[in-house]
Amino acid sequence: MNSLRFNQFLHSVADTGMELLRTRLRSNSGQLKTLTALCRELLSTRGEASGIAIARDIVNQYQELNEDQRLQFFEMVNEEFSVDVDDVAVAAETFCKLRDPASLRRLTEQVESQCQELIRRINMAPGGTATIVEMRRDLLELTKNHPQLEPVEYDLKHLLFSWFNRGFLEIEQINWETPAIILEKLIQYESVHAMKGWQDLRGRLADDRRCFAFFHPTLPNEPLIFVEVALVQGLSESIEPIIDATQPVTNPQKADTAIFYSINNCQQGLKGVSFGNLLIKQVVEHLSREFPNLKHFSTLSPIPGFRRWFDSILKQPDQYAISKQDHELMLKMQSDDWYEDEKLLESLKPALQGLIAYYLAYARKKDEPLDPVARFHLRNGARLKRLNWLGDCSPNGFQQSAGMLANYIYEPDKIVQNHEAHVKDRIFAIDRKIYDLVPSNLRGNQSKKRQKRKN
Amino acid sequence: MNSLRFNQFLHSVADTGMELLRTRLRSNSGQLKTLTALCRELLSTRGEASGIAIARDIVNQYQELNEDQRLQFFEMVNEEFSVDVDDVAVAAETFCKLRDPASLRRLTEQVESQCQELIRRINMAPGGTATIVEMRRDLLELTKNHPQLEPVEYDLKHLLFSWFNRGFLEIEQINWETPAIILEKLIQYESVHAMKGWQDLRGRLADDRRCFAFFHPTLPNEPLIFVEVALVQGLSESIEPIIDATQPVTNPQKADTAIFYSINNCQQGLKGVSFGNLLIKQVVEHLSREFPNLKHFSTLSPIPGFRRWFDSILKQPDQYAISKQDHELMLKMQSDDWYEDEKLLESLKPALQGLIAYYLAYARKKDEPLDPVARFHLRNGARLKRLNWLGDCSPNGFQQSAGMLANYIYEPDKIVQNHEAHVKDRIFAIDRKIYDLVPSNLRGNQSKKRQKRKN
Amino acid sequence: MNSLRFNQFLHSVADTGMELLRTRLRSNSGQLKTLTALCRELLSTRGEASGIAIARDIVNQYQELNEDQRLQFFEMVNEEFSVDVDDVAVAAETFCKLRDPASLRRLTEQVESQCQELIRRINMAPGGTATIVEMRRDLLELTKNHPQLEPVEYDLKHLLFSWFNRGFLEIEQINWETPAIILEKLIQYESVHAMKGWQDLRGRLADDRRCFAFFHPTLPNEPLIFVEVALVQGLSESIEPIIDATQPVTNPQKADTAIFYSINNCQQGLKGVSFGNLLIKQVVEHLSREFPNLKHFSTLSPIPGFRRWFDSILKQPDQYAISKQDHELMLKMQSDDWYEDEKLLESLKPALQGLIAYYLAYARKKDEPLDPVARFHLRNGARLKRLNWLGDCSPNGFQQSAGMLANYIYEPDKIVQNHEAHVKDRIFAIDRKIYDLVPSNLRGNQSKKRQKRKN
Amino acid sequence: MNSLRFNQFLHSVADTGMELLRTRLRSNSGQLKTLTALCRELLSTRGEASGIAIARDIVNQYQELNEDQRLQFFEMVNEEFSVDVDDVAVAAETFCKLRDPASLRRLTEQVESQCQELIRRINMAPGGTATIVEMRRDLLELTKNHPQLEPVEYDLKHLLFSWFNRGFLEIEQINWETPAIILEKLIQYESVHAMKGWQDLRGRLADDRRCFAFFHPTLPNEPLIFVEVALVQGLSESIEPIIDATQPVTNPQKADTAIFYSINNCQQGLKGVSFGNLLIKQVVEHLSREFPNLKHFSTLSPIPGFRRWFDSILKQPDQYAISKQDHELMLKMQSDDWYEDEKLLESLKPALQGLIAYYLAYARKKDEPLDPVARFHLRNGARLKRLNWLGDCSPNGFQQSAGMLANYIYEPDKIVQNHEAHVKDRIFAIDRKIYDLVPSNLRGNQSKKRQKRKN
Repeated sequence: MNSLRFNQFLHSVADTGMELLRTRLRSNSGQLKTLTALCRELLSTRGEASGIAIARDIVNQYQELNEDQRLQFFEMVNEEFSVDVDDVAVAAETFCKLRDPASLRRLTEQVESQCQELIRRINMAPGGTATIVEMRRDLLELTKNHPQLEPVEYDLKHLLFSWFNRGFLEIEQINWETPAIILEKLIQYESVHAMKGWQDLRGRLADDRRCFAFFHPTLPNEPLIFVEVALVQGLSESIEPIIDATQPVTNPQKADTAIFYSINNCQQGLKGVSFGNLLIKQVVEHLSREFPNLKHFSTLSPIPGFRRWFDSILKQPDQYAISKQDHELMLKMQSDDWYEDEKLLESLKPALQGLIAYYLAYARKKDEPLDPVARFHLRNGARLKRLNWLGDCSPNGFQQSAGMLANYIYEPDKIVQNHEAHVKDRIFAIDRKIYDLVPSNLRGNQSKKRQKRKN
Repeated sequence: MNSLRFNQFLHSVADTGMELLRTRLRSNSGQLKTLTALCRELLSTRGEASGIAIARDIVNQYQELNEDQRLQFFEMVNEEFSVDVDDVAVAAETFCKLRDPASLRRLTEQVESQCQELIRRINMAPGGTATIVEMRRDLLELTKNHPQLEPVEYDLKHLLFSWFNRGFLEIEQINWETPAIILEKLIQYESVHAMKGWQDLRGRLADDRRCFAFFHPTLPNEPLIFVEVALVQGLSESIEPIIDATQPVTNPQKADTAIFYSINNCQQGLKGVSFGNLLIKQVVEHLSREFPNLKHFSTLSPIPGFRRWFDSILKQPDQYAISKQDHELMLKMQSDDWYEDEKLLESLKPALQGLIAYYLAYARKKDEPLDPVARFHLRNGARLKRLNWLGDCSPNGFQQSAGMLANYIYEPDKIVQNHEAHVKDRIFAIDRKIYDLVPSNLRGNQSKKRQKRKN
Repeated sequence: MNSLRFNQFLHSVADTGMELLRTRLRSNSGQLKTLTALCRELLSTRGEASGIAIARDIVNQYQELNEDQRLQFFEMVNEEFSVDVDDVAVAAETFCKLRDPASLRRLTEQVESQCQELIRRINMAPGGTATIVEMRRDLLELTKNHPQLEPVEYDLKHLLFSWFNRGFLEIEQINWETPAIILEKLIQYESVHAMKGWQDLRGRLADDRRCFAFFHPTLPNEPLIFVEVALVQGLSESIEPIIDATQPVTNPQKADTAIFYSINNCQQGLKGVSFGNLLIKQVVEHLSREFPNLKHFSTLSPIPGFRRWFDSILKQPDQYAISKQDHELMLKMQSDDWYEDEKLLESLKPALQGLIAYYLAYARKKDEPLDPVARFHLRNGARLKRLNWLGDCSPNGFQQSAGMLANYIYEPDKIVQNHEAHVKDRIFAIDRKIYDLVPSNLRGNQSKKRQKRKN
Repeated sequence: MNSLRFNQFLHSVADTGMELLRTRLRSNSGQLKTLTALCRELLSTRGEASGIAIARDIVNQYQELNEDQRLQFFEMVNEEFSVDVDDVAVAAETFCKLRDPASLRRLTEQVESQCQELIRRINMAPGGTATIVEMRRDLLELTKNHPQLEPVEYDLKHLLFSWFNRGFLEIEQINWETPAIILEKLIQYESVHAMKGWQDLRGRLADDRRCFAFFHPTLPNEPLIFVEVALVQGLSESIEPIIDATQPVTNPQKADTAIFYSINNCQQGLKGVSFGNLLIKQVVEHLSREFPNLKHFSTLSPIPGFRRWFDSILKQPDQYAISKQDHELMLKMQSDDWYEDEKLLESLKPALQGLIAYYLAYARKKDEPLDPVARFHLRNGARLKRLNWLGDCSPNGFQQSAGMLANYIYEPDKIVQNHEAHVKDRIFAIDRKIYDLVPSNLRGNQSKKRQKRKN
């Protein structure tokens, strides 16, 4: 079937309407009206005679804005297209009195801001969805200092959450036959173990590797999230041989273990619209079918929150049962190149392993593991299996995770149980051996804390 | 790039979760739990460990329901997953007091029913979107006698309206190289000028024809709407030569006119989610580019509301200035084969033309043209150009439109003006010649009515 | 990657050259020169400045020829572009004297007619390959009465044999998602069990059926050969339930047998360029993978040569040990509707089965089975397993095969042995039970004949 | 339609046959037989029961051969599968006597070596065509020292010439959406202006560039030839700004000139099977359509044969009217870095320009321009328009073409005339200005030479 790719053409019918509008705008103000006017027009034009053309102009003009202008733009949107508080109040009062379907419907309509309809109409433009994702990325940045824009960000998130439903996504294998325009995004978005260029990329798409990504039909060249997998024998304990592009390629049919060594969310504008959990499970499923010999599925993951937590507890060594001697050694880790001192590393090993085991097993935030990667995988149904001392000897690896990496394993027949135990009962799937690494006095400490909490 | 078509496979990882659930359900009740239990489970499972599998089961089981069961299912959904009126009332009162962002957000969350989240999760299943469209089709049927289900229908419409945004649709040309699985849908959905089978279809996809449809990425084999176009010389006045598959194929490069002779919405479940206006304009645009010789774009349309209106006014002939003689003739139109009496037809011609012109030019419903096809095209920016006596001599053509067809022409540079004049000022683009057909005494009548309204 | 489909465009650069040529031709003779002139020009133009355009003109003009003109055209080609006998003779004599590589090369060049180069250049035109296949089809028809054209037909066959090498073919599954332009070819080309229209076709592409075809890249909408398969339980003995489109669809996963019930060569112009043997084996291979439960692969085949042979032996009943009584019954088979007399049928059964068994087991042509279908499958490595009385009760079935069908089974691990025994030792894989059906006195007859031959 | 990609699977049916063969071979000789045995088997096996499997083994084993083994392999092929000289002689004699169609056909069959049939059968293997192209590449190398293999090379060329007919090729646009597996080939095959890596490649596929290649259906990831085009304003005189990836991208819609700055044949094994002439003309055609503003189509080409010719004439300065002073300067060009001396360059300019103009206008080989690039473009219908002093200031540019580049322009309405004048009358389309650069005494010289030849 011929795909007409109408979107690539100029929509001259719609353009005719647009030209009319431009003329009118010009005659009013002597210059091309701003985005504000276009947004008003897009919402006010009943029917859609020129909707696509206006939406396209908004998309194009948005691309030209600098940061200040974006701020102004979203403040305008917030002021002009947010809900009318008085109208909502009236509808709310009516509902409280009547409590009938009609007044409920009315209230429902009143609490939905015009902003949502504006976004839905902008989406009609060629490239509209991509721009809306960018808008949310920009807004997430802006709301840090301008919390008043949160309602707009909330509206965008609401729609994106609905539009990027798993049912609309496609999973694709990425390999050396993938178009370059997609491959270069991988180089750009890979942040766990950075790629230096095409040579590195080629290594990560070798015959003993697999890479998968989710795509949305309107963003065909933009991966939403991708995962990199190495097919190996035995549970990998070090990242070095995996990301070294000069290593020989092995026969993937002989592999017994799939190592998920890098997962990257690509679109900041889709923050909070989570895909990672689904992607991992589907890739496990797919690999099981492609390679019947695979027996184990495991991550090789950083412990990215460790160092920050470690720096904070260093100030209260007693509470964490850190011996004076160890504390002195640990203070040396403030230097930029502490890890190049092999003796220091060796001396630190027992204490650091103990602390990192404690950190993963006991450190909490809102009743969930404090470490974001641990939180993600444990909640997702994986089991923390092993800690690997000197698993990542890159500067970043040392600074962030004290050079250690963790294996979270995915056992297909235990994923659901682990997940439910995690979510419902806060029982986290962590191997006995991890607990064993925690110094006994810290374990006692932990028990006391729990005791306290229960009381 | 290899598309993995994961959706076609069984999701065995998710299945594991599902099996667990089924076992639990069975152990409780001795049998496979019903859809109700699955819906609860789908919403209650925090995280998504087995979301896709549960959603798939819901989709499969929904397909098995008979009409009674569907009614029960939606009543359950309505009772269980609609908004909690008390919670909304509390949130509404709080908002009325505080009128701050936090209480607004809380209210917004309360008025969104759980049903919407349920639908979003069902959408994760393979074939989920298609099932949701079917659900709305079924609900539209059910709400006729069960208006209490309207909130559920409203929730479905809200999501489908958002998901079937023009930005997500693709326009495709349909021709003889299109897969049979799509072509058979055309035969099935064509209701303006029915096709008897593949022979008819082939004629409508001949070299001097064009056919275009909108598709949604998740329904690749289901056209949402399609339009059939004949490329001819001069403005067609009769449908016969167009739908007669035995007519010789002409050279489309020599055509000066594109006749849009059939437009069909295919998905009842998407009722009210309009695409027709956009499709026509984009096809006009596309044909202009493919055939630079095309000068005119016109429909050849039925007047489907005429007969019902005509039957009603026949009871009050005086008010519509129908002479006694004409009235007698018109009463003969009650018979099943009145149109086979050529003399009668000839005698009726002036009066019928006058009435149909009056009907199109003056008959109103909520300030818009009463005839649905006239309303659609005029609102859409077309101009009613001509009436064609004996344009459709099929039994259906006579019974519905008294054998007449109308040409609505689309002039690219006037579409926007027509549309805006229509929407804003209720000025309808109707040719002088149509007005001229209206009997003068009826025209006076009309002026008086207007006068009255103004007073 | 964008495929430019240049071939669909006019080649205006080349056209410029063509225009020049046309002008020149016109100025010479006052009218557009004939195909002859174009062929000369195509061969004489050194370089290829206007080769594609000339080739295209030849292709277009060939399409316009009637049968007489085609005869003239090929006679011209034969006279003008065949080898020069004198030149060959000179080169042959030189070679006989020198017997060196240079004179061999020279001789090789001389025996290749210019006609081959002409065909190769015509092939450059858009649609060239398709036209060349048509040319051969026409020539095969013409050579029946005009054997002098055989050298041209031989040249065409030589090139087509080289171009339609298995390495260039693609096997495709045909199903309801296949473009209609291909599906209609199936209806058209099916000659074993004719389809009445799309309804029949749909039945043959149901979920418990499979259909596969070979395609050549330059003929994307033209199947070269296709095979229809039914997935059933047990070895089918009758064609009726298979080709009856109203039969319910069964679950193909439960099938243990794949019945190849129709194989059709589509392109007469490719006669003698055999694909059937490869197609069957690859489909067996493919189905084994898709349906691991399949245990048997069998044809359900007509015995198309039986009736002609039978009619001939009826004249010498003694030689075939036909009893007087049987002979009288058999003479009744001359009538058009003999098979509607059930009693007659029943009376004929033993004798006809015996004769058909004899025909398949012993009737020979050039040391191969006389029946073309038997010859094809036995040579191809299959085993004649069973005869099915009243397997095909269509008029054609009775007239051609006396209502019987044969099962040739393909056992993957015996195909090669069967094939080699067949080709090398003339041992044909025919089941004991078939021999058992042959009347004993005929079997003796056969032994004598063999004896005689050996002596 | 589902493409089954059977070729990617193991052909287990065929494998069964293969296994049988291997067993037999092993039992004979105690080890896996060599390629020789396989080739014999492939040819001797009547029918094709195991043809694909044997062909595949040959393909796989050929890949493993080292250079010595390849030589042995082709010598075996040459000895065993070349024509039988005695048989040819007999057939030749018979033909000389009879001169009838039958004896001609017999002779034709005898002069075709078995090697051709061997190649055709090898082609059935997955990847067969690619291997055959490699075989010819290897043979072209081997025949330099082993001319006795020429008959085998000739057989390969004959088949490849037939198989790579323009009618079977597809032209594709190469851009940033092209799979990486193809793009890396461009980096690898570009030899006119080498690319250092992906950064360079990206520049050559920028929005103001175009790249096109021919592909054969059986080699989907292997371009046969590609051309790189820059869309610029005015006739480019220097390659630097074109291949500098850091230059800003310009608006291609504003370009009036397309510069073909690099054309590369990719497959050494297809040497002599020319595509370049067709590719350029089709790209001219395509660009005219995509960019209606384009007025000029020109190459920016090296003069690769100049330096070798120049070095030879330096020995006979008098004959080429080189002044003593110039001759001394020219001798300095022997150094490796002569071109870094700007003064020298400036002093040499008039003499070098004169000589290069003479070289292009008058130097001949077999009546055609001596320079291979000039020969290609002039024969192809282009016109030598301009010489650009310091057009290519790379070391290679200086060493090969004395830093000069030539513009050959393609004027669509003159291509055919130029081509025909070239081929038939040896009139070469060279601009007056080029002749004007030739020193007048050399021009006289040229006239005399011509005079002499005529006499």
